[in-house]
This record gives sequence, C-alpha cells and structure tokens, in this order.
Amino acid sequence: MEEQQGDAGRKGRLLIIGGAENRTCGAGPLEAFAGLAGGEHARIVVVTTATEVPEEVADQYTAVFGRLGVTSVRELRLLGRAAADDSATLRALESATGVLFSGGDQSRIRTLVGSRTNELLKRRLEQEGLVIAGTSAGATAMGHWMILGGHGHDVAASSVKVGPGLGLLDNVLIDMHFNERGRLPRLLSGIALDIRLLGVGIDEDTAIVVGDGHFTVVGTGVVTVVDAGQATVAYAASDDEPMAMFDVSLHLLPAGCSFQMHDRLPAIGTMRGANGEVG
Amino acid sequence: MEEQQGDAGRKGRLLIIGGAENRTCGAGPLEAFAGLAGGEHARIVVVTTATEVPEEVADQYTAVFGRLGVTSVRELRLLGRAAADDSATLRALESATGVLFSGGDQSRIRTLVGSRTNELLKRRLEQEGLVIAGTSAGATAMGHWMILGGHGHDVAASSVKVGPGLGLLDNVLIDMHFNERGRLPRLLSGIALDIRLLGVGIDEDTAIVVGDGHFTVVGTGVVTVVDAGQATVAYAASDDEPMAMFDVSLHLLPAGCSFQMHDRLPAIGTMRGANGEVG
Repeated sequence: MEEQQGDAGRKGRLLIIGGAENRTCGAGPLEAFAGLAGGEHARIVVVTTATEVPEEVADQYTAVFGRLGVTSVRELRLLGRAAADDSATLRALESATGVLFSGGDQSRIRTLVGSRTNELLKRRLEQEGLVIAGTSAGATAMGHWMILGGHGHDVAASSVKVGPGLGLLDNVLIDMHFNERGRLPRLLSGIALDIRLLGVGIDEDTAIVVGDGHFTVVGTGVVTVVDAGQATVAYAASDDEPMAMFDVSLHLLPAGCSFQMHDRLPAIGTMRGANGEVG
Repeated sequence: MEEQQGDAGRKGRLLIIGGAENRTCGAGPLEAFAGLAGGEHARIVVVTTATEVPEEVADQYTAVFGRLGVTSVRELRLLGRAAADDSATLRALESATGVLFSGGDQSRIRTLVGSRTNELLKRRLEQEGLVIAGTSAGATAMGHWMILGGHGHDVAASSVKVGPGLGLLDNVLIDMHFNERGRLPRLLSGIALDIRLLGVGIDEDTAIVVGDGHFTVVGTGVVTVVDAGQATVAYAASDDEPMAMFDVSLHLLPAGCSFQMHDRLPAIGTMRGANGEVG
C-alpha cells in the first residue's frame, strides 16, 4: 500500500548524491544539502554505517560542513540493529535538521532496514521537514529497493543484485557513479525485475533533490532516467544471457532539469540552477 | 533525396558487425556472411583500406573463409582515390558476390567516399544482390554518416566526431564495440546532431543483417537501438558540457530480434536464429 502512496504532501527533502561529491570548495550537492538543512543553524547527523573508515569520513564531512558555516555536526555509526533501535540514537536524530548517509558498502546499511531509526527518518521526512541525504552507497539505500551489487555489460538477470532499502523514496531504483562506471546495463537489469520501478542513475558530484512528487538536478554531471513503464521485456533462457527490452524511455538530465515522478515527465527548469528548488 | 528513399526494394544484403567477430570456430557473423554470399560458391573480396596491417588481416579472413568452404577470396587494399577509381578495381568488385570491409581506422575509409568503387558497391547492393559486410571501422563506414571518433562519458557536442560515410544505409548512425566500450554516450551525442538518424550500437561478435527495410540480429551480443525521433534535445552553453535529452526510445535486441527501420518497430523473431533471415 505504502508503495502506491507516493510522496505527495511530503514536507522534507531527500538529496540523493551519485558519490564523489566535491568536498573541497564548498559548491555543489553538499552546499545544497547544508542550505536545505538550515545553513548556519543546521544540526547535521552523519551516519557512517556504510563505510569501513568511519572516523576519517566523519572528519571529512565535519570539515566541509564547517567551511559552509555549520558547526553542529555529529557522527552516528550504527553498526548493528541494537544501535539502530537505541533510544539515544533516536534522540540524536529527533533533534537533527539534516541527516547524511555516507558512502561505503550499501550491504552494511541493511542492518538499519525496518529499525526504529528507519521509522523515525521516514516519519520526520514526511511530516517534519527533515532533510535526508545519501551519497554513493547511501544513495541507493534511499529507495524501497536498493542495488546491492552486480556487474557485466549485458542487460541480464545475473547483472544485478537487489534487496530491500530504507524505503524513503518509493517506486524508484537508484544507481550511482553512473556514467563514470557505465552502469546503465546494471540499472536496466534492475528495472527489468519490476518495470514499474523508475530507474534513476546519478553521476558523481551530482544529485537529485526530491521534493513533493518531483526532483531537480544539481551538480556537475547528469542524471539518467530510464522508464520501462511501457516497455516489453523478454528474459533469456539463462540468467547470464542478454535479455530483449523494447520501448524503454530514456532521459538525460543535467543540472537545472527537473522530473515529475508521478507523470514521469522531464522538464528543463532554470538551467544551471544551484539550490535545488527549481520547479 | 536519396536519403529519403530508404532501402525498399533493395536486392542485396548488408551485414554490419560490431567488431571482434569470432574467426576461429566458424560460427556467427562471418558464417552468416559467407552463407549469404553464396557459401562454397561465394567470390569474396576483402577490402583492407582501414587497417595498417593489411597482409595479416587478409590472411586471417582467407583462412576463416577457407574453413567455411569459400576458396575464392581476394584482397583489395585501395589505399588512395586512384585505386578506388581504377578499372581493375571495378572489375574485381563486379564479379564478387560478397565484399567485406575490415576493421582498423575508419578515417582511412574516407578516401573511398564518392569514388567509383563506392558507386559500384551501392548499385550492385541495390540492384544485383551483392552482399556487403563491414566490421568495426568498416561497420560505421556503411552509414550515410560515420562516427570518426570521440570519447567522454557525457552526451555532449564534443563527445563525437562524424563525417560522410559510404552511404550504403541511409538514416542510420552506426557505432561498434558498443557495450564493451560503453559507447552509448557517443552514439547519443551523434544522433543529437540530427535526431532523424536512427542510432544503432552493435556489440562485438554481433551483427545486423539488413534486408528490405528491416534488419535482424545475429551473434552473441546485443544491438542497442536509440530512436530520438520524438526526443527533445537542449544543447549546453559549451560543447564540453552535458546536454539535456528527453524521450529517447531505447531498444535492446539480442540475436533473433528484428527491427523494422521505416516504422522503427522492434520485434522478437525466432530467438537465437542463426542465419539472419528471420523476419
């Protein structure tokens, strides 16, 4: 049921980053995130569950947000379900204005799926205007389903592995480092599993800012949208063989473009807009 | 005018191979070519203009066609316009049943564009049932336009360089080694130049067999068709910046699939058909 509900009426913002975002000069996706979370008054929590080097990652983000004028930055490591259900964790998240999921290995984020942390994030996103960002591994985890791995240049059943995600954005399957790593075959293999899923491939240093039923693109790269809603898919005899796929609609959206998710319509907003609020 | 005419009524066949075709066991695109050209009775000319190692390439093809039972294999090197306009060249091509353009650097094939060789090939393809194949560099040269180079993971004006081709297949822009080298951005950059062009990206060891207004797919990989006929294209301020592109229709065709070029409709033929004559 929840899947059909969509995101209409949502108060918060999701900022989904394709990885390798600029962390030095303060421009781009992280600046958009800090701004949406309240600028100098933001209270940011960095969730480092996905990475194997949490101290390093937390230090990096603390430094970049500091340069952007945000002094309240806290790390939550959340290495197991107990931590994700812990009252102290929930209190920390309850007072945040922005939550950022770091990169790393998205398989490690599975421990949070369905936890009290997950529920709190979803509620505060929908009802209280919380801003949630995820980059790289943290990006694909935002969806109802997340891509856990996969490779191969063919569109084939064996080219992708998916599992349940945090469910902060329904009906969408997200992939990252997209053109840099040539991941269109992996994303198409994923949406072939359920052609109702909208495929969203996000380049490095690029993000979608998801508002009320639509998203806008910020950053230096492109967002590739693949819509198989009207497609014909014919699986091959074996999972390793390429499948046939007809009538997939493809959209390439650089910064400033926007996309209406319910009607699945792309639009050119104010090209090169920076704050993600372009309609 | 010629461009609008299409290929209806054409008697010959074009076999356009994405490169790196199997040359050892005798299966796949080269076997289809030899069969279409007459099997044991074929008279094959290998045009080695594109390659810098013509002896080696000619020897390889002579060997593989020999294993397929074809004993009449002749090399034409055609290293300049004089050779391409020479009467001896035309006589050799006049008696051929199949002509294969090797791989190499397609820039070298430009010397043949508009030559008497070019005219003869076009006439015999249309009126006399000649079978013409091209692989890799020789593949993209088949089109009215050919891709001469380009790189970059973005769809941008600077990501592709095109020039006139041999014009054996109208309204189509061909790219090769397609998924292996992640060339969708290059092909999309090419069709953005003229959205009436149908983009056809051919994987290695894979070919399209072009008949009367349609083609079928043979080989082990996939043919990617991009149709921007209904697309919206917005160029960026600079040639190096990514452009916006909406509503491109994408089709993935493994072996046995076919495509009607005039109506731009894909179809599933007899999957895994081998001889290229599947409708």
